[in-house]
Amino acid sequence: MDITNESEALYKILDKDSIPSYLADIPAVVEVLGSTSDLSIQEIGDGNLNYVYRVSNAQDKTRSVIVKQAVPFLRLAGESWPLARDRMRYEIRAFSAYSDLVPSFVPDIYFADEDMSTVIMQCLDNHIILRVGMIEGIRYPKVAEHTGLFMAETLFKTSAWFMPSLERRKLLDRFTMNADLCKLTEDFIFTFPYLVHESNYSNPATDEWVKENIHQDHEYKRNVLHFKELFVSKTEALLHGDLHSGSMMVNQDESYVIDTEFAFFGPISFDVGKVFSNYLLSCTSHFERPGGAEYQQWILEQLPVIWNTFETRFLELWKQSNDSTLYVSGFLPEEELESLRSEHMIQILRDAAGFAACSMARRTIGIAGVADIRGIEDVATRSTLEIFNLKLSKRLMEQRNELSTIDDLLVLVNDFYSTHNT
Amino acid sequence: MDITNESEALYKILDKDSIPSYLADIPAVVEVLGSTSDLSIQEIGDGNLNYVYRVSNAQDKTRSVIVKQAVPFLRLAGESWPLARDRMRYEIRAFSAYSDLVPSFVPDIYFADEDMSTVIMQCLDNHIILRVGMIEGIRYPKVAEHTGLFMAETLFKTSAWFMPSLERRKLLDRFTMNADLCKLTEDFIFTFPYLVHESNYSNPATDEWVKENIHQDHEYKRNVLHFKELFVSKTEALLHGDLHSGSMMVNQDESYVIDTEFAFFGPISFDVGKVFSNYLLSCTSHFERPGGAEYQQWILEQLPVIWNTFETRFLELWKQSNDSTLYVSGFLPEEELESLRSEHMIQILRDAAGFAACSMARRTIGIAGVADIRGIEDVATRSTLEIFNLKLSKRLMEQRNELSTIDDLLVLVNDFYSTHNT
Repeated sequence: MDITNESEALYKILDKDSIPSYLADIPAVVEVLGSTSDLSIQEIGDGNLNYVYRVSNAQDKTRSVIVKQAVPFLRLAGESWPLARDRMRYEIRAFSAYSDLVPSFVPDIYFADEDMSTVIMQCLDNHIILRVGMIEGIRYPKVAEHTGLFMAETLFKTSAWFMPSLERRKLLDRFTMNADLCKLTEDFIFTFPYLVHESNYSNPATDEWVKENIHQDHEYKRNVLHFKELFVSKTEALLHGDLHSGSMMVNQDESYVIDTEFAFFGPISFDVGKVFSNYLLSCTSHFERPGGAEYQQWILEQLPVIWNTFETRFLELWKQSNDSTLYVSGFLPEEELESLRSEHMIQILRDAAGFAACSMARRTIGIAGVADIRGIEDVATRSTLEIFNLKLSKRLMEQRNELSTIDDLLVLVNDFYSTHNT
Repeated sequence: MDITNESEALYKILDKDSIPSYLADIPAVVEVLGSTSDLSIQEIGDGNLNYVYRVSNAQDKTRSVIVKQAVPFLRLAGESWPLARDRMRYEIRAFSAYSDLVPSFVPDIYFADEDMSTVIMQCLDNHIILRVGMIEGIRYPKVAEHTGLFMAETLFKTSAWFMPSLERRKLLDRFTMNADLCKLTEDFIFTFPYLVHESNYSNPATDEWVKENIHQDHEYKRNVLHFKELFVSKTEALLHGDLHSGSMMVNQDESYVIDTEFAFFGPISFDVGKVFSNYLLSCTSHFERPGGAEYQQWILEQLPVIWNTFETRFLELWKQSNDSTLYVSGFLPEEELESLRSEHMIQILRDAAGFAACSMARRTIGIAGVADIRGIEDVATRSTLEIFNLKLSKRLMEQRNELSTIDDLLVLVNDFYSTHNT
């Protein structure tokens, strides 16, 4: 992976016209495409931040790459919301770490260009965004297991229970200044959705409910603030930072994680909680889709697969790790370690439920909704589901510290879903 | 403050012969000294890491400076224990932050030289190291209040409850790579003292007790590990990182904090706990000094002054801080904030007791003892006090979560001291 230095003068925003000549100068990309003389270029990004193109050889469409470029503003909000494009630097750094840790779960990176804030990577033509698949009610038999493995490998192996002290600090140092994207999370997940704020989404019936039941629920908001503090000051492991169903490309056999620009050192439970919340948001949306009940059942069955795979692998790695920043061989007897590890896993589960609660609220009230729900055209129906999700968010937040196992979480969730009157 | 870039070629270890010509080239220092043609130079460092010289104009001894230089090994352990001298960079950065935050509590810095790993600062001729004064049984009427203020100002104002997000990350970024000194703390405070380790101190009667009551106390060691994890992964505020009575220069009116090379972002309670532990270690030592009982009483009276000053100022600053990384105006009503703040202060107190427990153990068993105790010549007497301190460490660790106020801590401590048979 080549990384050149950033320089403002060398940056220009790519478009369909300028992409061919840009790619022609990159041997690794020319090799994948065969030739750059006749390219077919499609803008495919549905993201909130960046531009994404699929570029293929028009003579041989099986030869293709993805070109992703950061622009110096928040695409979702428009050019009036500046956002330093050096976020691409952190996306590249995270991909680089993941290529070592979980090569089978991230696309190949052919070229990374910090000057142009561009990354060129493997085109996943046989895969679709998991969120899109879930909206269509498609079952993916492997994705839950893959997600659990991805989290266990990346989160445990970048934690102080695995890494030696100096190596850990060096890795941490590579992400500390991903400041703009951390600030987006601070604002859009932990602050704005719970206040009257111009950036928030609006749906009259939902707004009414929110005014009464979110803005005025001080206990809930105090918990949100607690999780904001964890997010800001717990440097536990290298997080993906935006691990939801829109950041995964899947098919029946394979799962890839993309969009790593939010990567930074934070609490492990944040990644886990985001995954949970996006399954739950999708689950709720299926009250309104044909065949929804069966698909809802499938979704809820995935949660224990995700968690159990994550926990099993995380503990397996932990048991093998005898010398790290935190631990030296022989410091404690095995039975004490067992109990310490199991307390840690319970804490991750509880905090994941709290982060899931924040994530569900922000995806409902905040600027960046999920297509699962926002795509429902009838505003009254949509509002019913929005309020349902907010109630579930509140329930998760309130009861999180009663959870000790993933089964406890499932009981809570199933119990909650059974209250919905279809 | 001038900071030049580090370069290996430009570094040489200073000694009495080379200091005059080195200083002659630094206008800011020549100005303080008047002239460098006839200097009186004394090595005064009793530290574990660096060389410290007092340099004065032999014709006018009131004109003087302190020259402090880092050497590329752990002075305490000898040249065989390498330690990157770039720690001086972090000492300089911390002094720079403290000059803004608490100018009256840190010496003036005349010159800082990263190439030479040297800092040249105000000579505090009318002050002595607090530890030395406390060994002599001297009362300092202001130091407790000053220590509380120093901690409140530096810890609150570098926390996410005060700093805006980007500024906070930039400051954090300046200390992330103080890796060697963080590793020293990880090893020497949180690991080696609780194991058989070649670096540990030895005193036969104490060793015997430690084998039974520290090495085998798994609950205690598990708590130590908990605090190690907090130290490693809670980036709450810019800590001094080594705030004990050997890092303060005092007299009846003034108090200065020195030796800032351990500075990094960590848990607030770590600085508070180190202060507590060093008062307690001194207190114990006065069982064996003339007039000790009255001085012990004075020492214990300082703990609530330190804490109450710290807490009052910390909360005062917090109440004034309406917009920060964590908080935006109006997010919660004042009564919720009051209760949140008071929960935070209780947690800081409890964690400070836990960190104090670790610090007392390491100062007793580990390589870096305190002169208060290690200076007692009779080994049997010394061992009695060592075991007493270790028992207090265990009591603090075990009962820390029962503490809600500084009075609770005092009851615990007074109760414990009353068990000593003189």
